[in-house]
Amino acid sequence: MLTFFNEQHGQLRPRHELVQGHAVPGHDTPDRIDAILAELGRRGLGRIVTPHGVPLMSLERVHAPRYLHFLRHAWSEWAAQSPDHAQRDAFASQWPVRTLRADIEPEDLGARLGLYSIDTTTPLTSGTWVAAKTGADCAVNAAHALRVGERGSFALTRPPGHHAGADFFGGGCYLNNAALAAQHLLDDGLQRVAVLDVDYHHGSGTQGIFYDRADVLCLSVHAEPRQAYPFYSGHADETGDGAGHGYNGNLPLPARTTAQAWFTALETACVRLSMYRPEALVVALGANTFQGEAHGGFGLGGGDFLRLGERLAWLNLPTCFVFEGGSALRELGTNVVNVLEGFETAL
Amino acid sequence: MLTFFNEQHGQLRPRHELVQGHAVPGHDTPDRIDAILAELGRRGLGRIVTPHGVPLMSLERVHAPRYLHFLRHAWSEWAAQSPDHAQRDAFASQWPVRTLRADIEPEDLGARLGLYSIDTTTPLTSGTWVAAKTGADCAVNAAHALRVGERGSFALTRPPGHHAGADFFGGGCYLNNAALAAQHLLDDGLQRVAVLDVDYHHGSGTQGIFYDRADVLCLSVHAEPRQAYPFYSGHADETGDGAGHGYNGNLPLPARTTAQAWFTALETACVRLSMYRPEALVVALGANTFQGEAHGGFGLGGGDFLRLGERLAWLNLPTCFVFEGGSALRELGTNVVNVLEGFETAL
Repeated sequence: MLTFFNEQHGQLRPRHELVQGHAVPGHDTPDRIDAILAELGRRGLGRIVTPHGVPLMSLERVHAPRYLHFLRHAWSEWAAQSPDHAQRDAFASQWPVRTLRADIEPEDLGARLGLYSIDTTTPLTSGTWVAAKTGADCAVNAAHALRVGERGSFALTRPPGHHAGADFFGGGCYLNNAALAAQHLLDDGLQRVAVLDVDYHHGSGTQGIFYDRADVLCLSVHAEPRQAYPFYSGHADETGDGAGHGYNGNLPLPARTTAQAWFTALETACVRLSMYRPEALVVALGANTFQGEAHGGFGLGGGDFLRLGERLAWLNLPTCFVFEGGSALRELGTNVVNVLEGFETAL
Repeated sequence: MLTFFNEQHGQLRPRHELVQGHAVPGHDTPDRIDAILAELGRRGLGRIVTPHGVPLMSLERVHAPRYLHFLRHAWSEWAAQSPDHAQRDAFASQWPVRTLRADIEPEDLGARLGLYSIDTTTPLTSGTWVAAKTGADCAVNAAHALRVGERGSFALTRPPGHHAGADFFGGGCYLNNAALAAQHLLDDGLQRVAVLDVDYHHGSGTQGIFYDRADVLCLSVHAEPRQAYPFYSGHADETGDGAGHGYNGNLPLPARTTAQAWFTALETACVRLSMYRPEALVVALGANTFQGEAHGGFGLGGGDFLRLGERLAWLNLPTCFVFEGGSALRELGTNVVNVLEGFETAL
């Protein structure tokens, strides 16, 4: 399997996150990628390729141009305010919810930070744009690999992407890699694509991006949002809007769901997916369903990730895997690469 | 003029606010009220009365019941989490913007804090509920005073209220005192009420609460939201929705607007107000239009606040003043009481 990887992700080193007003170390550390890369090398599983840079126009197929413009320039604008600003990460302090407007872009930088974000747990820092952009490059390149004959491909990206909306960053995500991969497949000639999100957390950004469209079926198996992040998205009654009605499916599961129950939900998603008859599949691959995850985690053990890869292979679709969450560093490499190996060996 | 005041406001002493990730001292300090109280005493301007407590049902006329329930209990729930929590104020770290949902209340306290708030500059702390509730009592009592024959009344409240929405706190506001006063006048038999907001910042919460209603005309003269807080609300094209179309009016003014230009905008608002022919007026009275304000400020000097009071008296309406913003402590008392004295002496 072709793996697309860009070492520029290492430039993203946020200083801290603000969790309910409290500064804590960021959890999206570069060694998450190192762990997977090392395991890929150990098993000799396919070739690792540096992606070509994709034009901004490709990103505009999913993200609002004014959002992309902001994301590219926000850090330098922030850092230019004062030496003190340059020493700390950028956060917003207000957000345009409900009766407030998001259609007019304020001049104030702080207000624009709020306009284009959803939380205080996703700092904007010096390496944000380059890491997010090269991550998006990986995803689009991995999608394109399917169009030139690969049966499977893997975008080994950091930061993750599935919580990023068309015009906001959040949940550690800035550009929606899975959505960009799906959109690229459509733009390159396919008519029907599916995104299956198996991360512990609901693929809130991806859902929002494709919510009113019928050309991308979005399915997500994840932790019940009443109890788990992202809280404001991922309920079973979110089935799509307008032309997209019926093309979004959520399978929320209670905390500590067993591997058996998790695979039952996955099976429901797979059956639904097959009925849609997509021409290709994008998998938003989080490994934070692992039983040893510090935050969250279902009952999945290492072997279950092999099974997951096998089950996805049986769908018999060109499949692009895009890395999302997972922080149990000791087992992360094994679990993620198990999915890829399960997929490869079942072929 | 009857002034309604409750010393319980002093229980609200937030430790700090988070401005773009940076902790700064809270600016809504108890001495803001002390300054006005002292000046009222010096001039012997009317009687100061402790308000009766109004039932929660009165607050539910403006605010969502589930929001009120949250606001009453959030601090004790927060503090019960750990001794560390009890030592610091409560903040959210994520918000349900745009494609995210606000209709389902999550079980997670942090997620509920985000559901019911809009920023990190409005901490929730031990004294929040009692101060907000007794402030709302002041506003409803002051409105009621007009119904039993008073020509003018003043709610000397802290925290302020005009940024609080039907179901969110923010901008230092938790309960919308001006909206509660207007609603009480309607509930007590009036058919048409107007709210005029002369604070430096747009009355975003009040606008949102009455946006689709024709029984409350909302007018606001304030700083241009492209440059000034609240940024996401207060543009001239916000004229009301549905039945409320035409019953909301915003007069945004550029930074450093002169007193002369400010009074021209006020005159526009007053003419509009007279044409609506309300039976009573609620004035959201911020004194932060003063030229000496550290944050914001137009070109108004002390004498201009007397003129403002006079102009409002000429509207010849029973008028309830509700205190909002203003932090220039040395002149705050003089400026606020100038409005009240201008109003009284023009009668």
